[in-house]
Amino acid sequence: MANEPGAPLRVALLGCGVVGSSVARMLVEQADDFAARAGAPLEIVGIAVRRPQRPRPDVPVDPALFTADAEDLVTRADIVIEVIGGIDPARGLILRALEHGASVVSANKALVAEDGPTLFEAATAHGVDLSYEAAVAGAIPILRPVQESLAGDHVRKVMGIVNGTTNFVLDAMDVSGSGFSETVEQAQALGYAEADPTADVEGFDAAAKAAILASLAFHTRVSAADVHREGITEVGAADIAAARENDCVVKLLAICERVTADGQDAVSVRVHPAMVPRSHPLASVREAFNAVFVEADAAGELMFYGRGAGGDPTASAVLGDVVAAARHRVAGGHGPRESAYADLPVVDMGQAVTRYHISLDVADRPGVLAQVAAVFAEQGVSIETVRQQPGPEGEDRARLIVVTHRATDAALSATVTALAALESVAAVASVMRVEGA
Amino acid sequence: MANEPGAPLRVALLGCGVVGSSVARMLVEQADDFAARAGAPLEIVGIAVRRPQRPRPDVPVDPALFTADAEDLVTRADIVIEVIGGIDPARGLILRALEHGASVVSANKALVAEDGPTLFEAATAHGVDLSYEAAVAGAIPILRPVQESLAGDHVRKVMGIVNGTTNFVLDAMDVSGSGFSETVEQAQALGYAEADPTADVEGFDAAAKAAILASLAFHTRVSAADVHREGITEVGAADIAAARENDCVVKLLAICERVTADGQDAVSVRVHPAMVPRSHPLASVREAFNAVFVEADAAGELMFYGRGAGGDPTASAVLGDVVAAARHRVAGGHGPRESAYADLPVVDMGQAVTRYHISLDVADRPGVLAQVAAVFAEQGVSIETVRQQPGPEGEDRARLIVVTHRATDAALSATVTALAALESVAAVASVMRVEGA
Ligand SMILES: NC(=O)c1ccc[n+]([C@@H]2O[C@H](COP(=O)([O-])OP(=O)(O)OC[C@H]3O[C@@H](n4cnc5c(N)ncnc54)[C@H](OP(=O)(O)O)[C@@H]3O)[C@@H](O)[C@H]2O)c1
Ligand SMILES: NC(=O)c1ccc[n+]([C@@H]2O[C@H](COP(=O)([O-])OP(=O)(O)OC[C@H]3O[C@@H](n4cnc5c(N)ncnc54)[C@H](OP(=O)(O)O)[C@@H]3O)[C@@H](O)[C@H]2O)c1
Repeated sequence: MANEPGAPLRVALLGCGVVGSSVARMLVEQADDFAARAGAPLEIVGIAVRRPQRPRPDVPVDPALFTADAEDLVTRADIVIEVIGGIDPARGLILRALEHGASVVSANKALVAEDGPTLFEAATAHGVDLSYEAAVAGAIPILRPVQESLAGDHVRKVMGIVNGTTNFVLDAMDVSGSGFSETVEQAQALGYAEADPTADVEGFDAAAKAAILASLAFHTRVSAADVHREGITEVGAADIAAARENDCVVKLLAICERVTADGQDAVSVRVHPAMVPRSHPLASVREAFNAVFVEADAAGELMFYGRGAGGDPTASAVLGDVVAAARHRVAGGHGPRESAYADLPVVDMGQAVTRYHISLDVADRPGVLAQVAAVFAEQGVSIETVRQQPGPEGEDRARLIVVTHRATDAALSATVTALAALESVAAVASVMRVEGA
Repeated sequence: MANEPGAPLRVALLGCGVVGSSVARMLVEQADDFAARAGAPLEIVGIAVRRPQRPRPDVPVDPALFTADAEDLVTRADIVIEVIGGIDPARGLILRALEHGASVVSANKALVAEDGPTLFEAATAHGVDLSYEAAVAGAIPILRPVQESLAGDHVRKVMGIVNGTTNFVLDAMDVSGSGFSETVEQAQALGYAEADPTADVEGFDAAAKAAILASLAFHTRVSAADVHREGITEVGAADIAAARENDCVVKLLAICERVTADGQDAVSVRVHPAMVPRSHPLASVREAFNAVFVEADAAGELMFYGRGAGGDPTASAVLGDVVAAARHRVAGGHGPRESAYADLPVVDMGQAVTRYHISLDVADRPGVLAQVAAVFAEQGVSIETVRQQPGPEGEDRARLIVVTHRATDAALSATVTALAALESVAAVASVMRVEGA
């Protein structure tokens, strides 16, 4: 694969939207820096888009470079940058590029989380690089640190705010006290949420990123389908208020954690909203920012913080990978290969160990607390704190706020079901997992 | 340099103190993980120490591996880990190891900041790796992200809390309000400061790290001697109080910044205490933790946070480098080489552009403010805010607190000198630079 010394490397860009146009602009405007850092000039030989005729005044390249024929373009390049997104045709194009001996850089979390191993195997077979730093947490260098810097350590847990849209929405709900739907509309108006926000608010985007993080952190294949996923559509003002009273904020977390299940090492990978104490570093991640918190045996606690999306920030991550791929083509070698030797089982959500914060509206009469406590005991869930508050004036109700100790999610969720069935429980006002405490 | 497939790689450890003993223990206890991740078993072939006979019950290796003959040991290894520290004999041993074709991993900031280029050239000449992630900010992956992940971006500024001892002392002064000397004694008692704290409190340690960060961020050779250095010994209770009133904290910062000097691109590299607004992410870095804040054109603002020292955290960083070096020996290739193509000049402190926060005790009479303002104007320094506070009861004094706009440090420091010489200025109570605002 070694390039002739000094000869330009041919770069094909697939996609020229939000990310692709930043990539193209930076490659052109900083061409001298790229040549010096990569060891050879990087020359854009073509840009594949859906609409090649479309004027793109913000992309300073010869318009003749635009093409609709991505299939052909990938055979004419040393390095292929895939920023189309989605599963098809991105998958086929990447495989074709690898088969033709090109190194590939992609920002496509959906594809890597769905079918990464097929791509990794093709890259290995053809002796080229496949890298995707931009796929998780945009500009934040997180995959390289987990995969390389922590390669001598034992990662215990990765906990990330990896979706800017949902963080923006939850942050705005916390600040303004307003409800989910109106906050999403506000986020859309400000450009922080897509017209169809499903992938974000239902946690699909975060689940893909969780799968990628877990694969690298635990040397185990984890796909998006393995990830337990709950979005933020059910998070209501009552949950935000409950968090606030508990000196917490609500965050949508992507959590990758080592666990023991049936006496065996295993991993839990999940995306769900959780209460996080305000004193935890993740609690202060505001608006559309991202952050990833890592706990490792030797390193202790690490945090990585920055912009999770946007054209330029994402292009920064893409181009870091491009320079690495170029260096390898010039000087030999390749980036780290897929490492899946640990091959740990991924447990069901029921086997994950979590803590719950539960707010109940109960009948205000003697004996109710005993009844409630009995339900926890039956499920083997122990209570850390319980607080009673008077209910609304004139009603015969009290608010009971319970924070549990750690227990399996199955036991906790069975507890909530049993509580809801109690005659003395009028309503389950809020149920939320607690993390970082 | 390619290793026979599967054949063990011979690892020599130089030094078995705080860091070395953690490295040895992890190599032994996690041998299977290392073999899987590196592609070959890593076998400790010797440990060089000053006192080879000394019992080391916490290091689970055959005592026969200890030797005083480091010169010989480095010729018998594929990978040499240098955790002795200091300039000599570390430098000679590393050069000898490289000449014998070994890859070298070091945690030695003092050596890399003093004489890095000599070592880098030897590594390149012999086609092996030389890496030193652990030299800056301990467990925090920061050199690899700056050198590799941001290789496609344009770094504008790096601002780090990279010395745990001084951060612990400043944090304790902020919390308790006590003075410098007693806080250092407290830090010593708690193990956060050395018996001789000079390297930390005078900023030598941070200056070495600043030089390393600047070299990588700006593709320019910067040595410790190029770094403007002020420690925290002059930081008094008055400065801490002034910061607090300004809703700031005092931090010892290592700052690497692109500047324009005489119309030319250049860099400013400096270590000094500065006021940082409490709302800035660096302000919440408490106790002996480290954090590095990076501003890049495309990525925007990034922050990396974690433990900056300690045996295990530092070993985590060392061993990440070891796995990378091992992968290269097994699979071919090498890590990124020194990149110094930009070759930017390093400006004097006087040419750095900063802001000052100045508290003056002045005569409480009409016309003094005008006199003071005239001094700023004469030096071409413009004032952002000025606040007047009544002085102590019964005295004819007022406190004048001035925050400047950005100006060259030369102009700001000349302003302070001129102010101190004014007859109406009784005392300059506190002068501190402001960063991150
Ligand atoms: N946007 C972000 O902030 C961000 C952050 C991290 C990761 N990513 C990832 O980066 C990737 C790109 O995202 P984006 O926001 O840049 O997307 P985008 O703005 O929608 O751009 C997509 C580009 O792909 C082109 N394209 C679509 N279908 C194609 C096809 N069949 N053949 C050739 N070209 C085709 C489009 O052509 P036309 O221009 O002609 O429509 C457009 O240029 C996705 O994988 C995304 O998940 C994005
Ligand atoms: N400690 C940290 O938290 C930390 C963090 C980041 C980076 N670092 C860097 O890591 C390096 C090691 O630090 P450390 O704290 O582990 O030091 P340390 O505890 O003082 O250990 C130094 C080791 O080197 C051995 N040694 C000293 N002189 C020697 C010589 N001439 N030949 C052979 N061996 C010799 C000593 O042998 P004996 O055991 O026989 O005395 C000892 O084992 C330094 O460069 C330091 O800056 C340390």
